Amino acid sequence: MALISPSRRLRRTPFSEGVEAAGVKAYTIYNHMLLPTVFESIEADYHHLKNHVQVWDVSVERQVELRGPDAGRLMQMLTPRDLRGMLPGRCYYVPIVDETGGMLNDPVAVKLSEDRYWISIADSDLLFWVKGLSNGLRMEVIVEEPDVSPLAIQGPKADELMERVFGESIHNVRFFRFGLFPFEDQELVIARSGYSKQGGFEIYVEGGHLGMPLWNTLMEAGEDLNVRAGCPNAIERIEGGLLSYGNDMTRANTPHECGLGRFCDVQTAIGCIGRDALLRVATDEPSRQIRPISIAGDPVPGCDRVWPLMAASKQVGHITSAAWSPDFDTNVAIGMVRMSHWDEGTTLTVVTPEGERTATVHETFWI
Amino acid sequence: MALISPSRRLRRTPFSEGVEAAGVKAYTIYNHMLLPTVFESIEADYHHLKNHVQVWDVSVERQVELRGPDAGRLMQMLTPRDLRGMLPGRCYYVPIVDETGGMLNDPVAVKLSEDRYWISIADSDLLFWVKGLSNGLRMEVIVEEPDVSPLAIQGPKADELMERVFGESIHNVRFFRFGLFPFEDQELVIARSGYSKQGGFEIYVEGGHLGMPLWNTLMEAGEDLNVRAGCPNAIERIEGGLLSYGNDMTRANTPHECGLGRFCDVQTAIGCIGRDALLRVATDEPSRQIRPISIAGDPVPGCDRVWPLMAASKQVGHITSAAWSPDFDTNVAIGMVRMSHWDEGTTLTVVTPEGERTATVHETFWI
Repeated sequence: MALISPSRRLRRTPFSEGVEAAGVKAYTIYNHMLLPTVFESIEADYHHLKNHVQVWDVSVERQVELRGPDAGRLMQMLTPRDLRGMLPGRCYYVPIVDETGGMLNDPVAVKLSEDRYWISIADSDLLFWVKGLSNGLRMEVIVEEPDVSPLAIQGPKADELMERVFGESIHNVRFFRFGLFPFEDQELVIARSGYSKQGGFEIYVEGGHLGMPLWNTLMEAGEDLNVRAGCPNAIERIEGGLLSYGNDMTRANTPHECGLGRFCDVQTAIGCIGRDALLRVATDEPSRQIRPISIAGDPVPGCDRVWPLMAASKQVGHITSAAWSPDFDTNVAIGMVRMSHWDEGTTLTVVTPEGERTATVHETFWI
Repeated sequence: MALISPSRRLRRTPFSEGVEAAGVKAYTIYNHMLLPTVFESIEADYHHLKNHVQVWDVSVERQVELRGPDAGRLMQMLTPRDLRGMLPGRCYYVPIVDETGGMLNDPVAVKLSEDRYWISIADSDLLFWVKGLSNGLRMEVIVEEPDVSPLAIQGPKADELMERVFGESIHNVRFFRFGLFPFEDQELVIARSGYSKQGGFEIYVEGGHLGMPLWNTLMEAGEDLNVRAGCPNAIERIEGGLLSYGNDMTRANTPHECGLGRFCDVQTAIGCIGRDALLRVATDEPSRQIRPISIAGDPVPGCDRVWPLMAASKQVGHITSAAWSPDFDTNVAIGMVRMSHWDEGTTLTVVTPEGERTATVHETFWI
């Protein structure tokens, strides 16, 4: 791994002080901001995440706030998911597409009230797309990035830790819903969500000054739970089939290719910009789709570019994420595979920078 | 410095192979892509740049292509600079602003023909803003990111090297203009421009397959000129007052605050979205502005966050970029300073993470 040159452009977060004190070893950059990727080691972090509880600085999930009379209409223009049933207090995973149905982001939308949303974004400047649209259409809506930095509490002991800090009522927060909980005289949005399959919460910390006090409170309250600073774990998220925008999908892909067709209500999502393009895709099956793929042999290197998937001498897809899984004792991977070769058990050859390996297509992810 | 975790999301470039072979030591991330920052050392790279010639992988300057009948009208909507005099063959530095006059990017626009532009962008997804606007306004224009990766040739021997590869007519290319030059049966746009004050060119390499052949051709042709792989140099660009979007300016700033008022023709740039907001700014002087600032004492650490500038106990600005300059034997910096304290020679106190220092405001940059 190479070094990263520090600059203001790679923004620090309200929790950076805590992250550094916990001995962060590596970062990625996400939405022009530092996202920790390794503390002890990717494997040690992985085992800890599955057994205890971690506090994650996911400030990089910047918010795009929509506020005003046209907020709801604009929100529906952005996504093919039908939002008519979305009530305040709900969080929806929403593919965001352009006029061609190409993915621009895959955020979680948080409906704060009838005319106010936060869109908790993946790695692209979604703010620019939303501002461009609202300007071009002269809509009555304010679109901006508020001072909100999410802190995720993930792992099997997340409920226990959160109860100690926010009280018993935290247990009442259902999956992909949120409640308001006080911290230092302020109400914080807390949702049951997060970028792992281990369960937990995301605290939308509104106001950077609350960052380190909250971080320290959680660390102190969870000492006997073996709480640690953590981060989204490359192995665990591939095992669980959690896609990563920019890695597993780009503007070149439709939601259907990404296996996100169940979030596309192309018949009823009236107003969605990419609806016409996706109506066609939803009728005809996509010709390629994301699949779980195992790769034989020793641990593969980090997947820093697409690795071609070959059937004989013909390319039929590519791998976009890969890691060695200690729990499943194989290399787990995410790839895009052509229809002709996507059936369960199909054997292909993957061309990694370190040579060819045997790859097997699966139907379901590992957990 | 921490390590950077590799992933496909941090895109490699058509020149990555050459960059790695040259022994790159550190990167930054820029437009979701790897940008080298150090080869030998920042100081050694700096001296080499000022005395010889370097080949820079600046693929991160992604292009936003506007093509179609409305391309010119859309281009003028994006910027307060009057583009009526811009002929095909010209490159214009164009601040891009939103409806409030806030900076969204500070790219170079390249006019390829009457209805076709490339916008060579700084670090933000300008594509999203432009696509959002053109969609909202239903304009007749295609907006996309083409397969174009700029390669910069910078340094006092740049003309000599370029002549060897592209012929004598390269000398006829004037500053911020471009010509078409053949390479391997393809015509490449080559402009006299670049992110240094040492002179040189930017080759808009259209088609990733041409990347390494061109890289190798330049390296071989310049062997006796001491050509090396290089990159934008933090010291040299601060000495020369070359601003960096995300570091020295953000959406929070107007072009006028950034000293870019000369690129804002608010009386005549009809159609520019931020024009109304900037008309006010252009009439009333901005209350703060970017200034060159020297910092006394030993070399300062990397500026990874804003450093407050204090007059007595009152904050009157902040530093956004800083580096030790061997040639000027002082720390050179770029900062935003309030009108009350921006006069030449004003002495302030800068609060760095390693303690307070004396800072002096200047009128002009070092070269």
